[in-house]
Formats: sequence, C-alpha cells, structure tokens
Amino acid sequence: MRYAYLGPAGTFTEAALRQVVSPDEATYLPQVDVASAIEAVRDGVADFAVVAIESTVEGGVTATLDSLATGSPLVLLREVLVPVQFTLVAAPGVRLEDVRRISAHPHAWVQCRRWLARNLPHVVHVPATSNTAPAALIAAAVAERATSDLGFDAALVPPPAVGTYGLAELATDVADNPSALTRFVVVGHPGQVPAPTGTDKTTLVVHLPDNEAGALLAMLEQFAVRGVNLSRIESRPIGDALGRYSFSIDAEGHITDERMGEALMGLHRRCPYVRFLGSYPRADAIAPTVHVGTADGDFQGARSWLQRVRAGGTD
Amino acid sequence: MRYAYLGPAGTFTEAALRQVVSPDEATYLPQVDVASAIEAVRDGVADFAVVAIESTVEGGVTATLDSLATGSPLVLLREVLVPVQFTLVAAPGVRLEDVRRISAHPHAWVQCRRWLARNLPHVVHVPATSNTAPAALIAAAVAERATSDLGFDAALVPPPAVGTYGLAELATDVADNPSALTRFVVVGHPGQVPAPTGTDKTTLVVHLPDNEAGALLAMLEQFAVRGVNLSRIESRPIGDALGRYSFSIDAEGHITDERMGEALMGLHRRCPYVRFLGSYPRADAIAPTVHVGTADGDFQGARSWLQRVRAGGTD
Amino acid sequence: MRYAYLGPAGTFTEAALRQVVSPDEATYLPQVDVASAIEAVRDGVADFAVVAIESTVEGGVTATLDSLATGSPLVLLREVLVPVQFTLVAAPGVRLEDVRRISAHPHAWVQCRRWLARNLPHVVHVPATSNTAPAALIAAAVAERATSDLGFDAALVPPPAVGTYGLAELATDVADNPSALTRFVVVGHPGQVPAPTGTDKTTLVVHLPDNEAGALLAMLEQFAVRGVNLSRIESRPIGDALGRYSFSIDAEGHITDERMGEALMGLHRRCPYVRFLGSYPRADAIAPTVHVGTADGDFQGARSWLQRVRAGGTD
Amino acid sequence: MRYAYLGPAGTFTEAALRQVVSPDEATYLPQVDVASAIEAVRDGVADFAVVAIESTVEGGVTATLDSLATGSPLVLLREVLVPVQFTLVAAPGVRLEDVRRISAHPHAWVQCRRWLARNLPHVVHVPATSNTAPAALIAAAVAERATSDLGFDAALVPPPAVGTYGLAELATDVADNPSALTRFVVVGHPGQVPAPTGTDKTTLVVHLPDNEAGALLAMLEQFAVRGVNLSRIESRPIGDALGRYSFSIDAEGHITDERMGEALMGLHRRCPYVRFLGSYPRADAIAPTVHVGTADGDFQGARSWLQRVRAGGTD
Repeated sequence: MRYAYLGPAGTFTEAALRQVVSPDEATYLPQVDVASAIEAVRDGVADFAVVAIESTVEGGVTATLDSLATGSPLVLLREVLVPVQFTLVAAPGVRLEDVRRISAHPHAWVQCRRWLARNLPHVVHVPATSNTAPAALIAAAVAERATSDLGFDAALVPPPAVGTYGLAELATDVADNPSALTRFVVVGHPGQVPAPTGTDKTTLVVHLPDNEAGALLAMLEQFAVRGVNLSRIESRPIGDALGRYSFSIDAEGHITDERMGEALMGLHRRCPYVRFLGSYPRADAIAPTVHVGTADGDFQGARSWLQRVRAGGTD
Repeated sequence: MRYAYLGPAGTFTEAALRQVVSPDEATYLPQVDVASAIEAVRDGVADFAVVAIESTVEGGVTATLDSLATGSPLVLLREVLVPVQFTLVAAPGVRLEDVRRISAHPHAWVQCRRWLARNLPHVVHVPATSNTAPAALIAAAVAERATSDLGFDAALVPPPAVGTYGLAELATDVADNPSALTRFVVVGHPGQVPAPTGTDKTTLVVHLPDNEAGALLAMLEQFAVRGVNLSRIESRPIGDALGRYSFSIDAEGHITDERMGEALMGLHRRCPYVRFLGSYPRADAIAPTVHVGTADGDFQGARSWLQRVRAGGTD
Repeated sequence: MRYAYLGPAGTFTEAALRQVVSPDEATYLPQVDVASAIEAVRDGVADFAVVAIESTVEGGVTATLDSLATGSPLVLLREVLVPVQFTLVAAPGVRLEDVRRISAHPHAWVQCRRWLARNLPHVVHVPATSNTAPAALIAAAVAERATSDLGFDAALVPPPAVGTYGLAELATDVADNPSALTRFVVVGHPGQVPAPTGTDKTTLVVHLPDNEAGALLAMLEQFAVRGVNLSRIESRPIGDALGRYSFSIDAEGHITDERMGEALMGLHRRCPYVRFLGSYPRADAIAPTVHVGTADGDFQGARSWLQRVRAGGTD
Repeated sequence: MRYAYLGPAGTFTEAALRQVVSPDEATYLPQVDVASAIEAVRDGVADFAVVAIESTVEGGVTATLDSLATGSPLVLLREVLVPVQFTLVAAPGVRLEDVRRISAHPHAWVQCRRWLARNLPHVVHVPATSNTAPAALIAAAVAERATSDLGFDAALVPPPAVGTYGLAELATDVADNPSALTRFVVVGHPGQVPAPTGTDKTTLVVHLPDNEAGALLAMLEQFAVRGVNLSRIESRPIGDALGRYSFSIDAEGHITDERMGEALMGLHRRCPYVRFLGSYPRADAIAPTVHVGTADGDFQGARSWLQRVRAGGTD
C-alpha cells in the first residue's frame, strides 16, 4: 500500500505514519504539502494519505479541512496523536548564543514563541515550507561546506529529523505547551466503513441554510435530540461571501449507531450540504456517553412499536 | 352498528352523533355518563362511543381524557364540532320573570353565566347530571301535573331537547360566547388506522420522566425538531402525587407521516409512557404546515442517503 | 379579618381555612361556590378567600383558575394541603347494604369511584352542589323526621362534616387514592408581596402569541435560560376559539429572585398577556434547585460587569 | 496618532489603513507581523493597530483572534473591508511563460491556487513572510542588477505594491474568487465605547464550561432568547488540551442595546470566560433584525412592570 504524507523524511507526519504502518510494509510517498498528499489519493497515485487535521495550539488545519470538505469524496479511516515537541538544530559548530535567525515552519514558530522569547529573545523568524525543509538545507550545506549561505543559523525541526539528517542538537523538547498534541488522520477512498469499535467518532462537513436566524442552534438540536455529543465543531468560511460558514464537526459515535444515523438524516433533511467524512476509532478510546433512551435497542424498540401502532396495534 | 353516547335523547352529544350516523342506520345506546359510554365500547356493549373531548369554554373534558388515557386501549376515529347554544325551557305557563331556580348541568351553567347575570341576576343554580335531565323532569312533571314539585322553575337545555320533550321556550341562543363549540370524538377499538386525508390530527397521551428539569421542554423538542406542530396540549395530574403530570396532545398530521412517526419514536424512547389515541381527519379540514425538509420525501431521501453512506457510498 | 370560603361548615375548604386561621381569630364567611368566594374579596365583602386550586386526582380546579386569570387582580398569599378522604354518612338506622343512591359532589364522586365500584357496585350518583350539602340535608331531614324524602340514602362528606351535622358513619377513609391531597390557596388583594422564605413558589397566567409555531417551546425557554424550574403547568382554553390557550404556571422561587425577575420580564416582552398571581411559601417547604450561574449573586455580578464594560472598563 | 500595521508599504493592510486615516494625518508604523502590530498598542508604541481579522477565503486570521483573545485587554473600534485581488509582478524583462517559481505569502497562495493551476500549472511556491516582501526583494535586486539571485521569478503582491516598488505587471486581478474580501479591524485601548449608530456589531470571546454536554447549545440560547443574531462564530482551541474550545463571536447590535446587555450578562453568569472585544459600526451598514419584544423599549417596559409588580402593584 502507498501512503502519501507531508514529507520529506523526518516530519511529524512521518512520525504519525510510522504509527500507522511500518516503512517495511508500505511505500511512503512524501508530498510537498497537505493538499498534494490528499490529491495523491484522489489521483490514484497513493492509496492513503496521512495528514494533520488539528493541533491543540493552532486548531484545525485549514488546508486539510478545506481539501476534504470539497472535491471528490474521501473519508477518514483512523486517527493518530503525536506529541508536539521540537528540537533546535544547527550545523556542527554553531553555538546557541550565536543563533540570530531561525528557520521554522510558521506553525512550528507559533508553538515555540514563548520558549523563544524566553531563551532567544532577539531571534528572527525565517519561514520554511515544512518542518524538515531547514533540516535538509543544513545537511546539504554541511555536505557542500557552504553553511554560511544558509540564510539562517538554526532550525526548529521534529525530533525524528535529527537522525534522518544527521544534525547537531542545540536544544530539545522545545515547546510552549508540553502537553501539545497534533491529531493526524488517515485519508482514503470511500468504501466499506470501518466496523464500530465502541469508541468511535464521526466526522462531518455541514453547511447551514442561508439567512436563517437560529440555523446553527437548529443544527445542534439535530444532535442533541438524539443524544449525540459533539467533541469538535469548527467554522470555516464557505468562501463565496463573508458570513457564510461551513462547519467541520466531530460527533461521538459511529454512523452505524442508530442515534447517529437519525441525527445525520435530520441534517440531510434540513441543511443544504452534508458530507460524511467517516466513522473511525478514537485515538483516546473513550466511549461516548449514552443518554437515557438513545441506545440502539431504544431506537429499535421504538421502531417496532411504531410499526405495531401504525398497523393498528396497541403498544 | 351500536353507538354509545351521553344520553338520553336531546343532548348535545346526540346532535354530534347525528352528524356521524343517522338513527335509521345505527343503534343509539344512551349512557348515563361519558365514562359509561366509553366503557360500553370496552365491554363490547357498543361498537363506538361518541363523547365530548373539549369545549372552547371549559377546556378538556376531564372524564373523557382520563377514561381514554388509561384502561384497555381505545382510539379516536373521527371528530365532530357542535355549536354550544342553550335554550331556556320551562313547563307551559312559566314566565321568564318568575324564574328563580334554574336546573342546568354545571358545564352548561358556566357557559351561560354572563347571560344569566345580565338577564336573570338573582337565579340560583340547581345542578343536573346531564343537559337533558331537567328537560325530562319537566316533561314528566307536566304529564303528572306536578310541576310544583320540580325543585326548579326552568332549565338550560340543548336545542334538540325542546322538541324531544315538548317544552316551552323562554329564551333561545343562550350562551356567553356565540362562537363557542364543543368538539366530540368517535371512540372505537384499535384496528386499522383511518387512511390519511391530508388534513389529519394525531392524539397522544404522554408522561414525562420523573424529576427531570426541562423534561417538558425536551418533550416538545421531539416534535419541533421533526417539524410537527401541536394544536392542543393539556396537562392532567397522573394522580399519584402533586406535581406529576400526564399530557394530552393533539399534533398536526397523521401517524403514517414520516415526521410524525419519527417524533413518536422519539417520545417512545424518552418518555416512560406514550399512548397513541388515533390519527383521524380534522373537522376543520386544515392541512398542517410542512416546514422545509420535513415532507415525507425528505425523510425517504434522507433514509436512502444514510443507507448509501453506511454502505460506503458517497452521497 | 374576614375569610370567604366554600361553605357551609364542614367542607374540606373549612379544614384548609382552619389551618390558616382559627375561627376564634377571624370571621368565616361561607360562600356557595368558589367563584363567589373569590368575588367576595373583589367586592370587599371579605378580606381573603380560601379556595381549592388543584387536587392530585382532578387536577386544576377550573373555577379557581379561571376566576383568578381574569377580572380585577388578586394574588395568592399562602398554600395549604389537605388530605382527601371522605366519610360515607347517612341518617341513623341506615345500613350500608341498604344504600342505593349516594349524594356526592361530582369531584367527590370521581375520587371514590373505585372504592364505590368495589364496595357498593350498584349505587347511583345523586349530584350535590357541595361536599357538605347532603350532610345538611340529612341533618334537616332527621330533624323533620322526613328522611324518606331525601332523594338519596347516604352521602360522601368530608370528615369534619360528620361532627358538624351529627351524622351516622357508614364507612370512613373512603378514597381511591390514600395519598390524595387537595391544595388550597389563600387569595387576597395585591399589595406587599410576602417576603421570600427560601422555599417559595410563584404563580402566573400566561397567554401565548397567536399562530406562532413553537410558541410554547419559546415560552418555556424563557424559564430554562434563567434556570427557573416549573412545578406545575396547565393549559386552559382562552375561550374565544378552539386552539387558543392560557397557561397556568407554578414556578419554583420568589419574584424577588433575580432569575425569576428576568424570566418574568422575558415573558412580559414576548407574550401578549402575563398576570402575576403571587409569590408565597410552598407548603412542602422544598427549596428550589439553583443551577450554576443563576444565584442572585451571579446576576448582580453580571450586572456590575456589564456596567463596567459599557463604561469602557475591562472585566 | 500612531497606527501600527502589517507592513511594509504596499500591503493590503496599508490599503485598509488608508481607508481609516490618511498618511498625512497620522503616523504609519509598519510591523513585521500581526501579533507585533497588536503588541505595539499594548506596549504604548502605537495608539492603534489595523489588522486583518477574517477573509472570505481563509476564514478567521488566527494570529489576530488569538492575540486579542488573551493578554491585556484591547478593543475593536471600527472595521474596514478590502477586496482581495493580487497582481503578479516581476523584474523588468521577465515573461509570463518564463515563470517557474513564484514568491507569495501562504495566504496569497491559497487564494490564487485555481488561477495558478489554470494559467501557470507548473509553478512552485516560494513562501514569503508577507505579501510585499517579494516586491521589496525584486526592487532591491533590480537596483543591484542581481535578479538572478532572487530565488524566484515572479511574485503575487497586493496592487498598491506595484507602484510603491516600481514593478512590472505580468497579470492583474489574480484571484480565484472575484468577490473575495478581507475584513480588517482597528484595535485600540479600552475606553469609551463608540456610540451606537444603529448598524453595529459586537465582538466577543467566550469559553464554554468544561465537560458539559450541550454547552454550545446553551451558549447560543443565551443569544436566541434575547433575540440577538450572530453573524460570525468561530471556534479556536484553548490550547491546553484537545477538545477545549474558545469561541470568537460577532453578534448583531451594540453593547448599549438592552437585548445585547442581557445576553452578555447571561454569558457572564454561565461561561467561565467572557471577553468583550468592542461594539463598532458594521462596514456594510446593515441594521440588525429586531424580533418582536426585543427592542429597547420592550426591555424598559418589562423592567418597569417588574418593579411595579414586585412592589405589590398589578400590571
């Protein structure tokens, strides 16, 4: 199986991919960005993509959410959590006190801002296209003995990149929030939905009806009336005008759950656009709270009762 | 077919019954009270009962609501509206100015209070067990030339009783509210539910979960989320303790409607007791408002979509 | 002080009145019906009225609810609970097995139906205008040695009537539901609202806006958003057309509570008619549940914060 | 007055700033990033900052939302809309068909993706720290006759940058969405809130109570019950754990509106954190919909009524 991911070697995404499948058992296909990784699946170049979807610091990953929300349908098959800790690296011989310019992906930069302000208050940010790009540049410059042309002195890179590129560590565990996590998802083609495990989540994209006061409230009630809890809800502009939003939602439970099915049908009836992005096991394996009267048996019992009563029976 | 009703001849209920079926085509079985009329169906003595369920002045008819809410299941098959206008009658020779005591059923009395206060301010109420009982007493007293033993001077009776008992009219169209109506229902055994006509209502009895704040709100949301409007909701104490209520509900639409079916299943799942009392044509033939996304086709489309998506399809 | 009540001596209402004030300390003014008792206060004939407002068996007392809902404003000052147990009485010498016709107020009759069906299955109901009227008739007939003219053989009367009228007991504790209670209220003129005790309730009459789907839901949300629980809600037809309802509501708490005040203002803004019928101590002395963020201090803190922020401050 | 903004000259932000105040009447203080512009106000270096807060394509500007949500309090005083259209520029002599590498800020890149895919399908993205940085680099390289060292062939820049830096245009009106807009806000110190204009909006940051099912629904009901519409709601992770969100909200109306005030007090009571970020005129000058019973007069009338009733009055 071929897995597209945000490459090259040494990224956090690769760390996530390694949790999914060993490089011995699959082909790793590094891509230049998240959108390309997802498109690789759409184009048939890869069977799956592993992409970041949310981090505790930055929130939803815009490129992932938007790529999945439109275009030909793909689904999420699994999620993986990776701690967010950077290593500050440089070419051999560079000392921490000499560092003036640090190359870092903008997301990396914001996740280390306070650490940098405290430890290297005068450094300047040199933006990178990915977390590992500066690692590769350092390695190449070292090989060519041209480190003075790098344009930066050090770089914030994911820990796995240290070994991949053979870099010198100036500082490890660089992060403002030691409990920061990034959530990655495995994206694939629609097909058989993974069987429920009892600790699943379901991801959706929903547009609200135009110009309807209380539309968000009404949308949330579709879940609440069936006893479905939401673990994440994020708005994204639809892009055609200010004030029009698409909602990216994670709901607790699996599409085969009766309560989830009825809630989804309610959304389908009332909202102009609903896209099912998959039901898959939660990385934290927490089971959803099942409110009174909302277990599968309750729905099945209610359906049997309705059939009896519609047929003229009594209870 | 045998129809039990609140008799004897001459009652408002008989006027309702005549709207349902002519006495030439059915056996009329007068009963002493509403509960007896309903029990006559349960006991097999009658095929149907015609009973008042609500009036614009008095509200729900307690005895009817309570008899239907418990006991062996019966259903409503049809509704009939009868205007509430009384005739003040007496034995021949009685003049309006001589009237001091008026026999009237308590419900009749309250529906004419203001008329009486204005026209006969000093009269005293002599309660009667039914609207026609005093008509029969007058007729018998006249026959026995014993009108002085009646215990009252005049009576408020339904217009049809005037002819039935051959009484003298002192005043017609006696009513505080000229638009007052009583709604009667035809009660029968469960069996095939009457086919939907497009202008139906559905009657239910629902108990709320104990000790749950917001339980009434949650119950109403079961209807609102599916776009089902209620045309009547009345609370009745369950009778085992203060503060425990049963709700008698008329919802717009038919049990075969998709939105009604899903709302009823929602009630069945969350409420400790739900009794279906029938879907039947509205006497006023007003069609329910169908909100966006709540027509039968919307539900069927949503179900098909869910099946496709659960099977791994996309939209 | 003068107290109007449903008389004569020996009624349940008198039992309630005795809980309120001893006959040594007040003038008892018996009235022929509930409406008259309430009107006596309006007319200045009495200072207060004691009237039944709800029973566990029959639900809301229509005449009380309707008399209070319209007409010149009165308020509830206190509530009193009285157990509902009847005594079957007769003239001396009557044996239980001889009883064929029983005089009883219709409310008494329905509260003893099952007892009567079990113990005296063939008796006929002779309706009475009050619970004690037949007791007085028996006493008068005994005095006149004319018990054969009574028109009934025995009567269901409140226990206090046995002594008042010197009657013979055929059966005591007659009731279908041994835990049945009637709730009485003391009605008076508006003026100073009784000070909060911490275990109060507030009674209201509210009309819903016409023709507005979800109006009942919206009305209930006015309470829910401020964390006010309802202990009773009853619909009464407004009387001008089928389908138009007035709601009689008991809410937990006192009008001086911040959350109650804001909820009442919400009703006042959105509903065409809101009548405050008083805040008074609950007979059961149960304190309301106070949800997070809805204590008086929370409202006061929020008001101070808003004032600061409106004035340009920050938090 | 000193205005900090995302510089240097030629940015979209400068275009927004010019709408606010002419460079002849104020000091323009260009900053390296949005966070720095906002901090310049906090530090007293600037009186105001002009920063992007939302675009139709990218949604909320994370850095702005996050900088305002925490730290010492600042408020929004005004909003300005700027169309998003780029110009593709290069050094003199470069032809469109020669362009292989394009320098662009990541936000610019995503807003032109489809245009680029259609017109220059093989170009590579060279990320820039701001929209104008590549314009400055081209100008400097041209001056030094060193354009071959640029590392890119062309750049996507805001139209004003063309003149500022004297660049050659290869294509104008470059944008995937011709109606795309960016919304900018003027940020200042708290103080007197701008007077209501009748077409205002109010911006808030709200955290939900932890671990409470339905908390988002309950938060939205605080607005709905008072008739306040929301024009924007965006979730941002709080950053301490996955699943904990802060909501950035634009509500229609001004904090001096009664309905807005009561809604804010409701949030203050129920939510662990509410920050008022200002009431200011809407750029589109659309007046809010005022629902029945939610005008200022309705609130004032309700307050007067409550005071009368609490004092023992009637209506």
